[in-house]
Order: sequence, then structure tokens, then C-alpha cells
Amino acid sequence: MQGNAVVGQSGGPTAVINSSLAGVIDAALSSKDIDTVYGMSYGIEGFMAEMLIDLGKESPEVIKGLRSTPSSALGSSRYKLADEDLPKILEILKKYSIRHFFLIGGNDTMDTIHRVEKYCNEQGYELYGIGIPKTVDNDLYGTDHTPGFPSAARYNMLSVAQSGVLARDMQKVDKFVIYQTIGRDAGWLAAATALAKRDESDAPHLIYCPERPFDKDKFLEDAEACMEKYGWVSIVVSEGLLYEDGSPVSATRSTDAFNNKEFGAMGGASVGLNVHRILREATGHRGEFQITESLNMCAIDRAVPLDLEEAYGCGKEAVHMSLSGESGYMVTIERTSNEPYRAEFGRTELSNVALRAKAMPEKYINSRGNFVTEELVRYMRPLVGEVPHYIKLARHFVEK
Amino acid sequence: MQGNAVVGQSGGPTAVINSSLAGVIDAALSSKDIDTVYGMSYGIEGFMAEMLIDLGKESPEVIKGLRSTPSSALGSSRYKLADEDLPKILEILKKYSIRHFFLIGGNDTMDTIHRVEKYCNEQGYELYGIGIPKTVDNDLYGTDHTPGFPSAARYNMLSVAQSGVLARDMQKVDKFVIYQTIGRDAGWLAAATALAKRDESDAPHLIYCPERPFDKDKFLEDAEACMEKYGWVSIVVSEGLLYEDGSPVSATRSTDAFNNKEFGAMGGASVGLNVHRILREATGHRGEFQITESLNMCAIDRAVPLDLEEAYGCGKEAVHMSLSGESGYMVTIERTSNEPYRAEFGRTELSNVALRAKAMPEKYINSRGNFVTEELVRYMRPLVGEVPHYIKLARHFVEK
Repeated sequence: MQGNAVVGQSGGPTAVINSSLAGVIDAALSSKDIDTVYGMSYGIEGFMAEMLIDLGKESPEVIKGLRSTPSSALGSSRYKLADEDLPKILEILKKYSIRHFFLIGGNDTMDTIHRVEKYCNEQGYELYGIGIPKTVDNDLYGTDHTPGFPSAARYNMLSVAQSGVLARDMQKVDKFVIYQTIGRDAGWLAAATALAKRDESDAPHLIYCPERPFDKDKFLEDAEACMEKYGWVSIVVSEGLLYEDGSPVSATRSTDAFNNKEFGAMGGASVGLNVHRILREATGHRGEFQITESLNMCAIDRAVPLDLEEAYGCGKEAVHMSLSGESGYMVTIERTSNEPYRAEFGRTELSNVALRAKAMPEKYINSRGNFVTEELVRYMRPLVGEVPHYIKLARHFVEK
Repeated sequence: MQGNAVVGQSGGPTAVINSSLAGVIDAALSSKDIDTVYGMSYGIEGFMAEMLIDLGKESPEVIKGLRSTPSSALGSSRYKLADEDLPKILEILKKYSIRHFFLIGGNDTMDTIHRVEKYCNEQGYELYGIGIPKTVDNDLYGTDHTPGFPSAARYNMLSVAQSGVLARDMQKVDKFVIYQTIGRDAGWLAAATALAKRDESDAPHLIYCPERPFDKDKFLEDAEACMEKYGWVSIVVSEGLLYEDGSPVSATRSTDAFNNKEFGAMGGASVGLNVHRILREATGHRGEFQITESLNMCAIDRAVPLDLEEAYGCGKEAVHMSLSGESGYMVTIERTSNEPYRAEFGRTELSNVALRAKAMPEKYINSRGNFVTEELVRYMRPLVGEVPHYIKLARHFVEK
């Protein structure tokens, strides 16, 4: 339908969300049916304040540069739409003759589009709303995976591989290394670090996802067994780990001296610190740890080329769908072949995605709950790619 | 002098220390004066246990692969040499006819070579001992910079640049981002993050090095001024920060609820957490933080090509010096021109380097103690390189 378009970015950023933005801009600017392409400055919050950017006035260099720039160039927001906001949004859509409505985001964002589109239609205003998937957490329903996840996963895989080589070489000093990934409810990013492994002795040795309760005794048993076997151990923990009783591993247990409230306010930041403390106190060994937090959402130099391409393609696809008169969908990626990897774009109804988080299937975590399965590796490998080949010396020891 | 050679790696690793090892191996294997090239498995500790690897038996692929493999492939150690160890070392040197003795390491390592070389000469055993500089901390005397530092600095620069773009785009949610670098006594790595800045508004806005006492009130004043001006603030803190009274910022003050002892045992890990807490409590704003710890010591995909080359060159140079009959020196890098950058290898006596850490000169930190000077940027730019160009939208706002 003839009219203007608006695009916004929402929620936490990724290394490739600007590629999706570039896809929307390129497709919309080259369409005869779309006159002006507006950008929301800081998401739906900015939209409601009429903070609209004329994206057609950006230089071609800037639009191209979006594909090599991490994070959300329009500015993002985590605003939770209230029903009272809908009339205001409709008013602005009408004022700017916007008929094509795109948001790049996660499940909350899909809820926003869903409600805006539904409200407009109820009010007799023709609006085509399409969602473009984005989240490093990989927790959206209806799509094989989410743009942004493969690149974030690669960042974590590289970090764990490299810190593992370091820990192996430093085993006379430190006996363990703990790497904390984000992922409050789903362990996708922690699980992805398994791809760092070429040999059994490589990092990581133990991976703990929030899908399974964290058992301190089993953990200590497994970590000590690895130290015994390899001389060191690499452990990956997801920020959302919970004990069997539902209490967070990031919080303190009543028996220790940490301050619950302080750590609670830091979110899951202290999972890594607490697991570090547990292992250090139990074994007396020193260890390393890393908490990279949001760095995997913006490390574009480590982005996966496939991910950048798919993100761009999702942006374009959303515009094509909207121009074909489709509305109320999120663009999806459907894997049609695993080896070699092939995929095509599809769609799923926004209501299928909105406000729901897809946990990792049970089949992807081993029965002991301390590592992933081969099936997980097969699913992720085409997305995340191979880990670089770091050599190991053959070590021909001289006879004494 | 005709004989065998031994090489070891010592202390914390870097992304390029294996390049120095490859330089030693390549130069030693191609020399007619050196018969066998031994590697110490886990440093001088392994040497004393006669854990010697015949490096001539490694495949050419492995030796070449060292130059793209991070950390210390021989295995490292932090063993502090005792005088009682010297006779044992001499005995092994004699047993294996080792005349050329190379260690790649920092100031403790240079002390080890110095003492071994001196002892052997006193005992009438001809030994040529040369040190190859290595440390991400850049705190060795007598050299323009230390191999390993540029690559670690680049890792931190990229992380701060990328997390800054993220923080800027997320400023409606989080108002600050804190990035913690390693550097117990010297602020070189924290200071290097200044190279992430292209425009005044770019990250980082504030850098705190251990060379200057941390003043909580001035910090809050400066951080709030940045938030006011830019809408957000990027803060870099070095793990070794101290308050005016000499107490570590990583430890708790008596007035708060953290557990000193716990955090003390984590080293400086809690500087970032504590500064995060200080800012959150004072302003009520949310913020991000990242503690990457040793990841900058092993991120070879972010290594600076110049650094890899210089590290390799230092390894070769050490062998050439030893073969020329020189002993008791550490290879150095002497900058002969800044623009364009040119450097040549030199030497400094081991005693000039041993057991001393070079702090950043006063001239590299601004008078307020919250950022670096232009002079620091000029010194570091050729080593660390440019930050990638991440685009900013021109933001042509539509008139309401």
C-alpha cells in the first residue's frame, strides 16, 4: 500500500541489528510504494514523542556503514507499551501517513507490533506491521534461530576457546577458569561455547545452563574430576543458574558472608563470582574468571558473516512482505538443509512469538546436566562456524 | 658458541608470546652452531624437573601455527627462583650441553636469567643468557614497549569502543558502562582504551589508572557531568586502583556490607563492581559493566600485526645476539620514528629490567587524574592502531 514507513529498534542490541535496519532502509527506499522512511529515535518511546528521523536523508555511506556498525544506531528502548498509549500511536501514524510499521526486536517487541497493528485495524486504519527478529538469547518461537545469536555465540565460543588455551598453559598457577555468559532463562549462549572444543581435553569441560538446577555437590565432583584428568578445568556458567530450590546461584546462601541485596541489584553478575568462590573454597586452588556481559552484543569484528547476511535479509524481507499486503507476522528463518546449511525466509504470526521465551529443548543438554549433546553441536555449527585452529605442541619429551 | 639451546615461557601469557617462541625456534634450528633446541615444559619449574621437549621434532606446521596460537604453548610457570636452585640448573645445563639460554617473560623472568647466567659464569660454565620481553602490562624498563602489550591494548580498545556504542544506544535504559582492565601497578592498559575515541562524545569518557589515587567525590562529580552532557557515561577502571589512604578500591570500606576477605582473595576483580555500586547508589541509575580479566592476554584474532611481527623478531634477535657471543641482555625495541612508525631492536642489561615495574609517566595522565593526555595517544597509536569506524546516523529529525 502506498504510504510512508517507519522502523525502530528495540530491546538489547546485537552485532547485526543494524544490518537488519540497513535491509529495511534499502528495500524501503528502493520501493515506489513507500515515500518517506522514518526511523524511531529510541524505539516506540521516541516514536510517541514524535522523535522521527528522516532516513532517506542519510548518506549512502552511512546506510552501508550500518552493516559494519554494532548495536542499535537508531537508539533503543525497553518501554513496555500500555493500552493507553495506543491512541497516541495511531494519531502519529495518521499524522505522518505511515502505513508500514517495522520493529526489530525480541518477544516484547513482537507484542508491541501485534497490539499496535490490531488496534489500528480495529480503528479502521490500514497498517501493515511486520516484526524483524533480533536477540542474542535465541529464545524466539517460530524461527530456526534469531539474527544476532550466531554472532554473540561466536564471541563466547572464541572467548572460551582462548581462555581455555590460557588456562591450560597456566595450569601450574591456576587450576580453573570460569566464564559467565548472559542468558537469564535460556542457556543457548552458554551451550554455544561447546563449539570451542576440538579435542576432549579442550575447553569447555563443564557447561551449566539455567534449564537445569545447579547442584553444588555434583559440580564440585565434576570439576575435581576434570582437574584430576586434565590438570585444569574450564567451566561455563549461565547468569540465570538456579539451585534446586529455585534460589539464584547469583545470590548468596544464608551461610556465607556476601551481601544478598547488593548482588541482587547486579542481576546475575555474581554467578561467576559465586561459582569461583565455591570451587576455590572447596579445593584451595586459584582460578581465573571472566564476566563479559553485553560485550557479545556488540563485538562486530567477531560477527558471523552468515548472521550479518541473514539479518540484512530479514530486514528486506519484512519490507517485501508488508508491500505484498501481509501484516501481523514476524519474519522467520527456516532451515531447509543442515549440511550444507541452507535456509529460506518464512513467517510466523506475531501472537506465536509475543511475550514467550523459547527455552533450549531437553535433548540439547546431557543427562548429567553438565554439558550439551552432539545434537546441539550439529544444530549450532553452521550458525557459529568453526573455532580457529590453535596448535598444540607434539611434546617429544627428552629421555632423562 | 657451539652447543644446544633451551627456551622457556614464563609468567602470564600474551596473544603473541608464541610468536617469540617461533622466532627462537626458527633462528636456532637454522643455525649451524646450535645442535638441539630444547623447550622447557612449564618454564624453569619444568626445566628443574628435566621436563625438556625436543622442539626440532615438532612439525613445520606446528612451528608456523605458533604464530597464530595465543598463550604459552610450552606451558608457563610463576616459579620464583631460589639461590638453592642454581646448582641443579647448572647440572642440567651441563648434562644437556646447553650454551644458549632463552626465556620469554617479564621482570621476574629477567631476574631468573640474570641469576642463572651470573651463577654459571661464576662456576666457570660458559652460558649465553638472553631475555625476550613479554608482558601485556607494558611495564618493562629499557624498551619502548613490550611485545604483547599492543595486542592486549587493542582488545581493550575494541571492547570499550563497542561497549560504548552499545551504552550510547541503550541510554534510555542504562546510564553508564564500566569496563575493568587488568594492571595492578601500572595503568597502561586502562590508558590505551583512550584510543577508542574519535569524537569527544565517544567512549571512554573517564579513565582511572592506579598511578593516581581514586577520589570518590571527584569521580561522582565527573561521571554525573558526563551523563548530563552525553546522556550516558563510559568509565574505564584499572584493577589496581587505590584510594588516597592507600586502601584498594577493590576492597570494601568499613562502612559497606561487602566482605573484604572474599574480595581480597579475588584480586582486583571487584574494582568494577565497587565503582558500579558507588555510581548506582549515588545516582539511582542502572549501568552495565564488564570484567574481561585475562581475555586480553589470549585474543589472537584481535592481535596487532605489528605486535606479532615484533614478537617474532625479538625471538630471532635473541638467538642472533647469543650466537654473536652476547649475554646478560634483554632484547629491546627502540622507536626511531613515530610518524611513520619505525623501530629497531636493541638491548638492555638484564639488571636494568629485573624485578622493577615501569609505571606510566606522569605526563600521560591529565591533571584531573580522570583521563590520559594527547601525548599518550601519540605514543600508543602506532602500536595499537585505529579503532574501526562505526557510523553514527546524521539524525535529520522531522519537524513536529
